[in-house]
Amino acid sequence: MYGAIEAGGTKFVCAVGNSQLEIKEQAAFPTESPVKTIQNVLDFFQSFQLDALGIGSFGPIDIDPLSSHYGYIKNTPKQAWKNVDFLGKLKQVYDIPIGWTTDVNAAALGESTVGAGQNKTNVLYLTIGTGIGGGMVIDSTFLGGKMHPEMGHIPVKRHPQDSFAGSCPYHKNCLEGMASGPTIEARTGVEGSKIDDAHEVWSFLANYIAQALFNYTLTLRPDIIVLGGGVMDNKLLLSKVKEELSPMFNQYVDVPALDEYLVPPLLENKSGITGGLVLAEQVYDKN
Amino acid sequence: MYGAIEAGGTKFVCAVGNSQLEIKEQAAFPTESPVKTIQNVLDFFQSFQLDALGIGSFGPIDIDPLSSHYGYIKNTPKQAWKNVDFLGKLKQVYDIPIGWTTDVNAAALGESTVGAGQNKTNVLYLTIGTGIGGGMVIDSTFLGGKMHPEMGHIPVKRHPQDSFAGSCPYHKNCLEGMASGPTIEARTGVEGSKIDDAHEVWSFLANYIAQALFNYTLTLRPDIIVLGGGVMDNKLLLSKVKEELSPMFNQYVDVPALDEYLVPPLLENKSGITGGLVLAEQVYDKN
Repeated sequence: MYGAIEAGGTKFVCAVGNSQLEIKEQAAFPTESPVKTIQNVLDFFQSFQLDALGIGSFGPIDIDPLSSHYGYIKNTPKQAWKNVDFLGKLKQVYDIPIGWTTDVNAAALGESTVGAGQNKTNVLYLTIGTGIGGGMVIDSTFLGGKMHPEMGHIPVKRHPQDSFAGSCPYHKNCLEGMASGPTIEARTGVEGSKIDDAHEVWSFLANYIAQALFNYTLTLRPDIIVLGGGVMDNKLLLSKVKEELSPMFNQYVDVPALDEYLVPPLLENKSGITGGLVLAEQVYDKN
Repeated sequence: MYGAIEAGGTKFVCAVGNSQLEIKEQAAFPTESPVKTIQNVLDFFQSFQLDALGIGSFGPIDIDPLSSHYGYIKNTPKQAWKNVDFLGKLKQVYDIPIGWTTDVNAAALGESTVGAGQNKTNVLYLTIGTGIGGGMVIDSTFLGGKMHPEMGHIPVKRHPQDSFAGSCPYHKNCLEGMASGPTIEARTGVEGSKIDDAHEVWSFLANYIAQALFNYTLTLRPDIIVLGGGVMDNKLLLSKVKEELSPMFNQYVDVPALDEYLVPPLLENKSGITGGLVLAEQVYDKN
């Protein structure tokens, strides 16, 4: 029996599943203080005999096993969680193998194992929501050395009609600063789900996301890119992104047909928690 | 006994070495027509009994083993080499395992095995010369799916004082279009090796290269970046790049000390040919 935690900045999802990755029990609760939230996690798992646990966490996090801060949440804007030894607190309670990675890495692992990328070797998963982040799985292994990717913060060129200054506290007008969910409301005063599909803000976002996908394609050469996150819930956005991206590839870069290359998550909102189960299985098999 | 070919757009290097990667014999000749050049390759290897061969080639090349054009040089600006079945012509002659990858992948493999990245898991190699290209080795395996990276063509933001239009035939003002060797002479009328270190052109290049390194760091998270190619022969350029890059990392991204993170090739001009020998050994061991 495996446990999985999808630790998001807004909510936590916990699940228990078997080696067929079937979720047997699941719960979600809001992300509150570390003490309260971790207590909720422990309460959920209390009645299960876990063999291993897999965690996908919001970040940035320390994933270097040789670091004295391995398992910590690092310099997050969520003050109460800054420098919290998240993994350590779970290790105090569970004497089982625990896998530890980012939320987007976990989602990439879920999609690459039983989701949209299950027949692909190189699977890139992006979330475009409250923040923007990406994780890549290459043959069941995460891309990244001692540090995980921060590809949501790459620079983008300003859309000529877009006067929005950018919202990233670190880089102002990076990809996340220009195309994350909150930028929609910051530009228009209205939240994304209530804005007409014809509003120019969607063209701006489509352009920035396409710039990023062009960049990732040249650099990473994924076989498939899975696009998740709340902003992608707008049903027309993905086709607008494809329209923007197609001329960028021009004749130079061969990519698969865009309808096969850029896809929504097959596991819908379960990519991350499923990836947590896969991660639990991976660390169990290694032990 | 292993053979290696470093197939560059300007010159070919061929070598024969042993399993200790010691080069026993080496030759270089200019890149002429495919027929002439491949004949030179065959002549060089004629007196050796090879067990395997490793090739690092200029590109773009087809590296998808399932493609009908696997082993071809693709849409290169060098007209005579366009759509040439380079690997096929060698396979007609040698009935031995042959490894086939890009010139920069081969250099990355050389540096990661016995060069500057020999103790690192994630090694990024960049060449900044006539063109700009990059290859990454993760635990002895190349990054990339059915296609190899083309990270020399990522977009960059224009330096405010730089009015150069850009020289890339495909993207005009991408990284290669703004920072490759020929752009120096195109801007100044003088070739790079003869230009004063204080000339503003070096600041432009340092800025573009730093933008690229920032981007690759966020996306790829290498443990080390090895910077080769003729443009990097300018002894002050690497320190200028570090000066530009340091404020870009700001407080958000933790990277190793820049003097350890950004380094010249330890194998100097032998990164690629050594990587060819490593590749030959890899395919030999797999067979």
